[in-house]
Amino acid sequence: MKKKLLLSILFFGIIKIFLAQSQIKVIEDFKPSTANQPGNEYPMVNSEGRVRVQISAPEAKKVQLDIGAVKYDLIRDENGVWTGESAPQDVGFHYYQLNIDGASVPDPNSLYFYGAGRWGSGIEVHAEDEEFYALKNVAHGQVREHIYFSKTNSSMRRCFVYTPPNYDKNTETRYPVLYLQHGGGEDETGWSNQGKVNLIMDNLIAEGKAKPFIIVMDNGTWRMPKREKPAPQDTAKKEERPKTWPPKGWADNFMKTMLEDIIPVIDTNYRTIADPKHRAMAGLSMGGMQTRIITLANPDKFSYVGMFSGGSISLEDINNSPGFKENIKLVFISYGSRELENPRIGLWGDPKLNTEEITKAGMNTHFYVSPLTAHEWQSWRRGFYQFAPLLFND
Amino acid sequence: MKKKLLLSILFFGIIKIFLAQSQIKVIEDFKPSTANQPGNEYPMVNSEGRVRVQISAPEAKKVQLDIGAVKYDLIRDENGVWTGESAPQDVGFHYYQLNIDGASVPDPNSLYFYGAGRWGSGIEVHAEDEEFYALKNVAHGQVREHIYFSKTNSSMRRCFVYTPPNYDKNTETRYPVLYLQHGGGEDETGWSNQGKVNLIMDNLIAEGKAKPFIIVMDNGTWRMPKREKPAPQDTAKKEERPKTWPPKGWADNFMKTMLEDIIPVIDTNYRTIADPKHRAMAGLSMGGMQTRIITLANPDKFSYVGMFSGGSISLEDINNSPGFKENIKLVFISYGSRELENPRIGLWGDPKLNTEEITKAGMNTHFYVSPLTAHEWQSWRRGFYQFAPLLFND
Repeated sequence: MKKKLLLSILFFGIIKIFLAQSQIKVIEDFKPSTANQPGNEYPMVNSEGRVRVQISAPEAKKVQLDIGAVKYDLIRDENGVWTGESAPQDVGFHYYQLNIDGASVPDPNSLYFYGAGRWGSGIEVHAEDEEFYALKNVAHGQVREHIYFSKTNSSMRRCFVYTPPNYDKNTETRYPVLYLQHGGGEDETGWSNQGKVNLIMDNLIAEGKAKPFIIVMDNGTWRMPKREKPAPQDTAKKEERPKTWPPKGWADNFMKTMLEDIIPVIDTNYRTIADPKHRAMAGLSMGGMQTRIITLANPDKFSYVGMFSGGSISLEDINNSPGFKENIKLVFISYGSRELENPRIGLWGDPKLNTEEITKAGMNTHFYVSPLTAHEWQSWRRGFYQFAPLLFND
Repeated sequence: MKKKLLLSILFFGIIKIFLAQSQIKVIEDFKPSTANQPGNEYPMVNSEGRVRVQISAPEAKKVQLDIGAVKYDLIRDENGVWTGESAPQDVGFHYYQLNIDGASVPDPNSLYFYGAGRWGSGIEVHAEDEEFYALKNVAHGQVREHIYFSKTNSSMRRCFVYTPPNYDKNTETRYPVLYLQHGGGEDETGWSNQGKVNLIMDNLIAEGKAKPFIIVMDNGTWRMPKREKPAPQDTAKKEERPKTWPPKGWADNFMKTMLEDIIPVIDTNYRTIADPKHRAMAGLSMGGMQTRIITLANPDKFSYVGMFSGGSISLEDINNSPGFKENIKLVFISYGSRELENPRIGLWGDPKLNTEEITKAGMNTHFYVSPLTAHEWQSWRRGFYQFAPLLFND
């Protein structure tokens, strides 16, 4: 009798879960994503932020949408067209991909962006504040592909350079420069493609909210220096990750490239104001860590420092960097609110506390938290939008 | 007895075909394509021009490489990794895709290019003459993304503008302009991404073979004007394709955009020599047809005309365009050799005969055939390489 009861509880429990799942009400107000390839209806996004994809795969057994580290099964119709949607996503830009019978591939319907170490699909989820990065009928700057020979790397490199509106007309005007770095697994295309930094600047300048300046976006990708292979008797030893991260020296190559190649190339080829007072450096995630290391090591070469989801600067940092406190006019630190919920955030100490401490020590700082976003581009777009108006006002 | 003989002939016939197929000797000197995503080993190309792709798809039943309008089956290994190669391809750039259980998707290992109406995979097959479009340590021009408001379309548009090396330093110098159009299913990114026109120009200028000039690449995509739906009683009638192609009027919208938006925007924003003697127009395929129509209708606005795999200009054309013969300093016509084998090539008359006729009538012409290439980018890269040195020499 007891067994029967247990079985029937189990049975109705399963039915209940099944019903609950099938009763997720998806709001049917999907619209094409603004990051779709021209003319494509899919992928779509609804007002909850659910992403719906569709692909024809008549012979496939299983097709999934892979977004935000979760895989969602798609449903096949009688023609072999698979459709399905994700749980609601945060506003802004997300990388995603499709899985077709075990193959991870880009969605043929989306535009492609470089992130997570590859060119792949991206989607835009409507944000209430998306006007600040919208394409508008205002005066526009240019994004230029600049190819140059790097002496420090003995190779051809390229960067993208944003020149503000009317740069070519105001031929007597010289401009300050912001060196702006991408995150790990991204490259020199990220800030203009998915970051829309050129449109953010054009809009800020049109509204008189930011001074016009040049933005230089280069490739800061870091490759671990090759280590000598351990002797055979040592192979059992597990290699330890350095206790402090990043390990000493990891940004040295990019620092050298920045100081000996990139800055001289830009000062030679553009109408810059080529002094430390008119030079800023900022970056997101890995680019923020590089900004921290490079500006702390060279406080005589920069005046503004920005780190988006890339750590913070502590009192100890400043004490170990003679001249930093005197020369740097702004330390800007930002995060997505969801990142601050993560206990691992305090890798170099709590960013808010660090910032409060250096403020007390007399530095000009700005701490910004992007509401309801994570370690993603919407946090960095918003971070940049807060940062840019604070630059070069002295 | 007869039946047995037939059966055994059939049997050995099948065995023979099987052996022949398995005996295709593939030369094992594959190297990664130069159009791969950074760090990727696959896709690869060998010295015969075979393209070998690889993708992990453990649950798939069938995976194919789709290139040059042929689908090649890949072979699965015990880990679910599929590998296989195409027949030899012509040298240069080709679009391709993968088919996974019926789904057509980009290869996650390649870079992506806009063509055939979508962003998709591309591959480079080594060419003996590839030096002319290689990235070298020479002075480089810039490719600039230029965003503008189009009055004739009431919308924001963008073009890419190549400015030659030292454009920003020679601030007193003014430059001629070439308006250079992509083909059908392509867009304003084609000539610099897969065409490498900026590298071709940089190399030509470095060798003193071409005058420095500005190149403007806009989007000429043509959408068929909406027709009124036929009355119900007429639906049985099959719609006829116009007997002459393109039909009258199809380039009108782009002509208006070119004359009223693009040229004024460029002459306002760049240091151009803003007269007809220093203005050229050229294009590939559809862009060549647009060049033909726009320059024949406006022989007072251009001086140089180039058409790559996009038709030719006949004696009748010239006779119907007062001023064309007097004003146009060069008519350049080119094709891939494999296109000329196609009887459909003579859509507006045989291009070589047409060109000979207008030469006899007193025009300066140049007819070029790219060896062993088809209606593809290697023909157009080579066409441009022949065309550019002939521009603006007067």
